[in-house]
This record gives sequence, C-alpha cells and structure tokens, in this order.
Amino acid sequence: MGINEAIELAARNVRESCPLVHNITNYVTVNDCANALLACGASPIMSDDISDVVDITSICGGLVLNIGTLNARTVESMVAAGKRSAELGHPIVLDPVGAGASAMRTETAGRLLDELPVAIVRGNMSEVKALAGSSSSTRGVDVCPEDAVTEENIGQAASFARDFASKTGCVVAITGVIDIVADQERSFAVRNGSELQGRITGAGCMLSSIAGAYAVANPDKPLEAALAAVCLAGVAGEIAESRMGALDGNGSYRTYLLDALFNVSPEELARTASVEEVR
Amino acid sequence: MGINEAIELAARNVRESCPLVHNITNYVTVNDCANALLACGASPIMSDDISDVVDITSICGGLVLNIGTLNARTVESMVAAGKRSAELGHPIVLDPVGAGASAMRTETAGRLLDELPVAIVRGNMSEVKALAGSSSSTRGVDVCPEDAVTEENIGQAASFARDFASKTGCVVAITGVIDIVADQERSFAVRNGSELQGRITGAGCMLSSIAGAYAVANPDKPLEAALAAVCLAGVAGEIAESRMGALDGNGSYRTYLLDALFNVSPEELARTASVEEVR
Amino acid sequence: MGINEAIELAARNVRESCPLVHNITNYVTVNDCANALLACGASPIMSDDISDVVDITSICGGLVLNIGTLNARTVESMVAAGKRSAELGHPIVLDPVGAGASAMRTETAGRLLDELPVAIVRGNMSEVKALAGSSSSTRGVDVCPEDAVTEENIGQAASFARDFASKTGCVVAITGVIDIVADQERSFAVRNGSELQGRITGAGCMLSSIAGAYAVANPDKPLEAALAAVCLAGVAGEIAESRMGALDGNGSYRTYLLDALFNVSPEELARTASVEEVR
Repeated sequence: MGINEAIELAARNVRESCPLVHNITNYVTVNDCANALLACGASPIMSDDISDVVDITSICGGLVLNIGTLNARTVESMVAAGKRSAELGHPIVLDPVGAGASAMRTETAGRLLDELPVAIVRGNMSEVKALAGSSSSTRGVDVCPEDAVTEENIGQAASFARDFASKTGCVVAITGVIDIVADQERSFAVRNGSELQGRITGAGCMLSSIAGAYAVANPDKPLEAALAAVCLAGVAGEIAESRMGALDGNGSYRTYLLDALFNVSPEELARTASVEEVR
Repeated sequence: MGINEAIELAARNVRESCPLVHNITNYVTVNDCANALLACGASPIMSDDISDVVDITSICGGLVLNIGTLNARTVESMVAAGKRSAELGHPIVLDPVGAGASAMRTETAGRLLDELPVAIVRGNMSEVKALAGSSSSTRGVDVCPEDAVTEENIGQAASFARDFASKTGCVVAITGVIDIVADQERSFAVRNGSELQGRITGAGCMLSSIAGAYAVANPDKPLEAALAAVCLAGVAGEIAESRMGALDGNGSYRTYLLDALFNVSPEELARTASVEEVR
Repeated sequence: MGINEAIELAARNVRESCPLVHNITNYVTVNDCANALLACGASPIMSDDISDVVDITSICGGLVLNIGTLNARTVESMVAAGKRSAELGHPIVLDPVGAGASAMRTETAGRLLDELPVAIVRGNMSEVKALAGSSSSTRGVDVCPEDAVTEENIGQAASFARDFASKTGCVVAITGVIDIVADQERSFAVRNGSELQGRITGAGCMLSSIAGAYAVANPDKPLEAALAAVCLAGVAGEIAESRMGALDGNGSYRTYLLDALFNVSPEELARTASVEEVR
C-alpha cells in the first residue's frame, strides 16, 4: 500500500469507528480540541481530577496529554491516567506545549515521556528539541526561527526526528511550515498547511487531539496515524485559507478550519496530501 | 393558557428582565455558555472559588451547576453556592455531565441532588438514568444508543421522567433526538432540533445555562421554564441548520446556533416549538 | 505629535515587534484573549502554576492579570509573576473583573494594585470605583447603570479617572459607551465602539490583553498604549457591527470582532479613532 492509500485508510477508520478520546489539556484551546475531535469523526471527553481520570480513561480508546496550562494538580492526573491507559494498551499522545520555555514544562514533558509508553509526540521543533535535551533557546509556545525546518535543513531535521523516535520509542510529529513525521526507521515531510494556522491559537493542540483519535482508530499503526492527522490538519488549513474574504481575519479562519476538518473526506485527504519520504 | 403561550411568556420574561445567572461549570464549553446566556437575553457570571461563590451567587438570581470537568475543589464550591442559593430561594439547575461514566461523576451528581433543592435537572437519558440508579452502561458524555428516546419507547420514557421528577422533586429535561420535559404530573415531548447539535461540543451545556436563566425569570414555574428553554435550543438548532452552506461544518454551525439563540423572538419560538403532552 | 499620530505609532510598534504577553486570566474568555492578541499582532502565553509563572513571565515582555475566575491558587501565581515582572521592568495590566461584586474580588484587585507596580488598570466604571473604594453597588461583571459615563457626567468621570491615576500611579482605562483613558495629568474620551460588544462575553478581557501587548511595544508610554488599545477595540467593534446580516447574532459578532482586530491597520486606526481630550 502506498503512503497516500495508508492515509486514506487511517482517516476512514476514524470516521467509521468514532473513537472516544480522553483529553487532559489546557483551558486555552480545549473547546477547539473538543470541536476538532467531533469534526474529524471522533468524540471527546475531558476530565482532569485525580479521582475521575482513571474511570474516564478506562471507557475511552486513547489519551491525549497537553501541558499548555499544566499545574501541580493536573500533572499528577496525567500520570495516573497515563498509567491506566498503559495497562489497557491505549495509545497516548503527548503535546509538550512550551517545553523549553520553563523548567516545569521541560521537566513535566520529560517525566511523562519517561514514565508512560507514549505512542506519539506532537510538537514544534523547539519543543521537541527541548525534550531531546538539545534546545538552546525558546520563544515561549512558538517555534524559534532558528529551529524552523526548511528545504535546506530538511535532511538533518528528518534525521533528528528518527533519532528522537529511536531513543524514545515514540512516533514524532514535528509541525511547522514543513512538517516532519517519523518513527525510528522512516521519516516523511508534509508540505500542506497555511501560514494562517500560526495566527490562531490552538492549531497545534487541535492536531494533537486529532492524532489521538487517529491513533485509537488505527491500532499498531502510530506512524500512519500521526502522518494522516498531520496531513488532515494541513489540508484543512489550506481549504480554510481558500475561503478567506477581504474582511475575514483569524476569527473566520478558526471557524473555516473546523469546517474543513468536518468536511474533508478520506478520499480528498489522500488526493491532496503532499507527503514525501525523506531519508 | 396553552403550552405554546406559556412558552412565549417564559421567553418574554427572560428578554425583559435580563436575569443574572451564576455558573459553576466546565472549562470546555464555558465560553459558549456565557455567550448563550447573553444571546437569550440573560447575563452570565462565572465564579468557582469557595471564598468567592457565596458572594457571587447572592447577587445573582439563580445558579447552574455543571460537572463536565468537576474537581475536588469546585465540587465543594458547588455545594457552598448551592446552599446559599437555597437560602435565598434561587432556582438551581443541575447538569450531570457524564454521570454514569465515572464513580466521581455519579456520586457528585447524586450528592448535589441530595443536598440541594435542585429545580431542574438537564441531561441526556444515560445521565439521568445513572442519577436514578437505573443505568446499565455508558458512552462517556454521549447518550448510549440503547437509551435513546424513540417514537416506540416515548411513553415509557415519559413515565420514567415523571417518576424521576416525583422522587427528586425536580423538573427533569432529558434531551436527545426527542426531548422529554416533565414534572411529577405532566410530561411533554419536544420534537425540535438538529442532528448537528450532536456534532458540536456544548449544545447540552448551553441549554442547561439557558434553563437557569429561564428558571430565574419565571419563578415558581420550573416546568414551563425548562420546556421553553428546551424548545428555544431546538428551534435555534433548526434555524442554524438551515443556514449551513456546502463548505460549512461544525465551526460555522456553532456560530449559527448562537446567532439563532440571539435572534429568536418569543413569538417565533411559540410558533415553531413542537411540543406535545405525552401521558 | 498629535494624539491620533501617537495612536498610529503605538499600533505600528505592536505589529512590528510581535510582543510576547503572559496572561494569567479567566477560563471563560481565555481563548478569545489569545486570538485577540494574535489578531493585533502579538503572541500570547498562558501559564498560572506558581512553579511555572516566574519562568514564563521572564521570557515575555509583559503581564496581564485578569481576575475573572480567580481562585486561591492562581491569586498567588499572579503575585509571584507580578513581582518577577516588576524586577524585569515589564509592564503589568490589571483587569479587576467583578471588583465590587464580591469581597474576594475587591480585596484581590486591591492587593494586586498595592503589591505590584501596575502600569494600566482596565475595567468598567463600577469595577474601578470599587478599586477606588467609592463603589456603592454592583451588577456582577457588568457596569451599574448609575455608573455609566454619559455626556452629562463626562467631566466628573475624567476627573475621577485622573484622581485614580494619581493615587495609584497607574494609567486607567475605564470602558463603556464612552471610554475614559487617563493618567494623573491628562484624560481622554473615546467615542468608538458598538452596543453589541456588551452582548458577547470577553470584549473587556480581550481589550485588557491587547492593552498588555500595546504596553510592551510602547515602553514608557502607558497612556498612549492604553489609549490606542481602547481605540482599536472600539474601531474593531464598529467594523464588526457593519458586517452584521439579518441572521447574524452574537456568534457572528464575536467572529467579526476578531477579524476586525486582525485587519485594522495602524493608519485606519488613527483615521477612525474618535479621541478627545477632556479636562
């Protein structure tokens, strides 16, 4: 099966199975994450109390951990939910929002990666570098300009991603102008998306939640799941951009993005995904 | 007065009095709840700290308790605010989000119902069954397929709702494809709404907050208040669906739903509400 | 330089420098605040854990403290972040949401004002009066009708604002139908805006976050920064209103408002801002 066929199948599996996804996530973009999961054909549950998360994660198919507004209470809930998910064999997605920007974020992301069998890490290059211990600087929750993946450094970026995947045992999805998705053996570049995705909050968070749904619906295929989710976000971003009128801004763009996530069929996704293996 | 006249009056009372409603609710849909209250002619306040809620609920007309992202801290705030509301004779609406999906949710919803003079319970059939102690299964925050109210089991559902109302002393609004609203004596079916309301997050939460506003503006008429709120949500859902264009998805639907809540007049509501008494 | 030129320059400085703004804010409107910051050309970070805020605020240019859903935990985080911001010379904006509506809110807003070198206070007249110790009544998070600034009492309002600025050392932006922005020497009235801004949640919160961005990008000019931010919100509110169609309500208005914040250029802002000095 070619990679675009694999992407189509991954998307179809989500639409057909409506996976339940447990999210312990930040309060900035949580509503967008819930609507993005519904848009792509999944169903969201949010729960973050230590006394609630084990029950909730047990009835779900997978778990998304997003540290965007982490606090001492919810970090412990993440660990508890993650351990239960691990027992049940549920896939776990980690979004290390702002890793590198504070000691607490870097340490928490590292701890979750160490203690839990994370299936997919989804972040920008600065965050993933911070997780890998090779970060030099930070610009908060945005990627540092010097970390951006470009046509010039793409081979190096892909190699870094494969190494990270090898060391951690995770699939890694590093998103930016060019996205890199890799496991320890293979790495792919995705050249979909819109610059406007950087002008709304939540584009990355939504993708991480969607990756959770794709991982649940495609068991034992985390690479294809992550790749399909990244392509979906990118293709939806392009469709949303194509709807922008003269008076539209990031308010309308956010709405159009959800609309596109809702409407892109598996066939359209496979047809418009721009994926290339990078060695 | 016929039931549609009673609905018109209930809606007019909200638009004319702009009730202040205190919400202790989840962080997923809280923004939607606030905008839905403003849309329907009310004014929202959110406050969840144990040291703040008693003062805040004292200046409001009613209280909405929604356990969608409950935690140990805010559950105690719900109880404290509820007791103060009770002293003041303010109506309390309970939305038992996810009751049945975890022990903490089921127990908390039960505790709130036991300790507080709840005026209206608004949930899906699985949640209300869990509260009634008659639940067999769960699908997280969504209704289980086997619990759906249909034309075949509607009499049974109405009877269950009246029994629940009788045992708890509450009005109950069980929403789904067909909605059931009942007190211990009378039960009504509402056949408004759109399938798309299940494809956005927050449709139920918004309705619960609106029910709070309707209860405040219609003192001693919780049945009519709940019924009018359920009809408003359903009618608005239909109007929103009628605006959907080819490229629209759940992003636009969410916007159109708020718009419709904003624009539906009491007269239009009474004219388009599809209400039938069920015995 | 005339005041409209100063406003144009203040806006251009934001668009050119993309200031990073740390927000400790409420969970009702936090998504709108993040998107509003992105719309106006800035970049948002949200962080509220006591172990995270010092690091995060250190990499930002300024801090916005909004007590809309304050709790015992995050109030201490506000103080810690504020003290670090003060050490670094970063501007701090305080939004005293609901001051006067509860003892906790009034005391917390007062404490933040006492302990931190707040640059800009942005609230409605009832909230600012509560902070000044001269409040008589409250309507939750809305302004009390008797506190509204009108053409009749505008001189008195401006004098109150200058006095408040003088006593606290802050610039104060009191927003409503007519906005008043003042430091201890000068006071301005802004007559932009739309009635619909009172029918969405978050209009005030978004403005406070934007004021934070403007303060960062215009160091040592808090009066011009606050004035430009107030004008931007008002002008965007007017543009958003001009797009309203027959079926649109507060859902669409919210989207149009973000769109307008995104699209208003510094030149357009300066041309359409309606600013007058009031003595």
